[in-house]
Amino acid sequence: MILGRVVGTVVATQKDEKLQGTKLLVVQQLDMELTPKSAYLIAVDTVGAGYGEVVLCVTGSSARFTKFTKDKPVDAAVMAIVDQLEVEGEVRYSKHQGT
Amino acid sequence: MILGRVVGTVVATQKDEKLQGTKLLVVQQLDMELTPKSAYLIAVDTVGAGYGEVVLCVTGSSARFTKFTKDKPVDAAVMAIVDQLEVEGEVRYSKHQGT
Amino acid sequence: MILGRVVGTVVATQKDEKLQGTKLLVVQQLDMELTPKSAYLIAVDTVGAGYGEVVLCVTGSSARFTKFTKDKPVDAAVMAIVDQLEVEGEVRYSKHQGT
Amino acid sequence: MILGRVVGTVVATQKDEKLQGTKLLVVQQLDMELTPKSAYLIAVDTVGAGYGEVVLCVTGSSARFTKFTKDKPVDAAVMAIVDQLEVEGEVRYSKHQGT
Amino acid sequence: MILGRVVGTVVATQKDEKLQGTKLLVVQQLDMELTPKSAYLIAVDTVGAGYGEVVLCVTGSSARFTKFTKDKPVDAAVMAIVDQLEVEGEVRYSKHQGT
Repeated sequence: MILGRVVGTVVATQKDEKLQGTKLLVVQQLDMELTPKSAYLIAVDTVGAGYGEVVLCVTGSSARFTKFTKDKPVDAAVMAIVDQLEVEGEVRYSKHQGT
Repeated sequence: MILGRVVGTVVATQKDEKLQGTKLLVVQQLDMELTPKSAYLIAVDTVGAGYGEVVLCVTGSSARFTKFTKDKPVDAAVMAIVDQLEVEGEVRYSKHQGT
Repeated sequence: MILGRVVGTVVATQKDEKLQGTKLLVVQQLDMELTPKSAYLIAVDTVGAGYGEVVLCVTGSSARFTKFTKDKPVDAAVMAIVDQLEVEGEVRYSKHQGT
Repeated sequence: MILGRVVGTVVATQKDEKLQGTKLLVVQQLDMELTPKSAYLIAVDTVGAGYGEVVLCVTGSSARFTKFTKDKPVDAAVMAIVDQLEVEGEVRYSKHQGT
Repeated sequence: MILGRVVGTVVATQKDEKLQGTKLLVVQQLDMELTPKSAYLIAVDTVGAGYGEVVLCVTGSSARFTKFTKDKPVDAAVMAIVDQLEVEGEVRYSKHQGT
């Protein structure tokens, strides 16, 4: 899965019929020190992620295996909101402390 | 999904039989400031996208999950025409204003 | 899909049994000006592509969805021979004119 | 599969319902001399891998084919703990010798 | 498919149960002049490939479509041993001549 932060939205009214009702987010990828990368994903929201939240994205065929994306033509989905990231014994991010 | 702009077409008469009737577009990838990248996709059109339009492409197995690509040997499909892209609170693209 | 040119072949007699009878091509990737890249694919031929022809390759799971590759362990297949490539209003390649 | 070392964890309470009970690991990729790369995976643990262990990760749709990940929206899973890596006749890593 | 040479093995006793009995090879990728790249795959052997042999690897979901890997959590498999590679009319590799 890919670590990222929600930084925007895409609106598209003319789209495959199975995408009606889906919300498309722009997710900026983060490295393991939470530094933004110059890489972005456009992913379907499946967990009610809000602007600025740190999230996990699933890509490829597995993006169709969330509750809301079954059999839809999507290759990326936000499927978790991150509470805490710990790397090498150090808490690099904690949602509730805003670290 | 991948943000891009339709910049061309590919014609191929000799092809897998399941591809009869599909339209193949050349899509130039765009970054989140709508600047063209030097990367391109060749993707099946599933939404009637026209030359110059800003679109979303789905890649991989999910490209077979649009209304028009079921079980076809395609790994990229244009599945939405973008109306608006908003990043970091800023409207970076709006179809109707030509931003 | 990936644009390329057939530049060679691979012969392998000892292989997965489902690959008996398949022809393996070496395809050099091309950019949108038909300039060869230093990237290559080894792909199953499904359209009778000949040496030097400009083709489209499908990769990933979709390579198993041509008439000749169903359920085979292949991740790339030549599934179309290109007649014409038009980018930004310009014909970059035409099979019959050898452009 | 990708060689890596477990270096951290991700906690996410708000997530797709099928992910309840899964443990998410941060895995730093290793080259064939066991030197850490600057690339990371976030992968579901399916083998009880502990901090610091050298593991193999499976990515893409195959990450859904472990005993614990069937039909879940995950694109990476730790599916083996490495005992030994031998390259060019040389044991590059042995779990029990800490090489 | 990816051209490579078998350069090593990975031993892992603690692994997903469906991987029991599989042999894991380290495959160094080769370019079309048979020069080793600095990229490696860890792939399941399905053809009895030996150390030093030039092979083809299938990656992604298709790696599960060999006789020995059905429904297993693997994303790369050696599925052919190369006898001959011909590029631009030149035999770049021939197994029996050791070219």
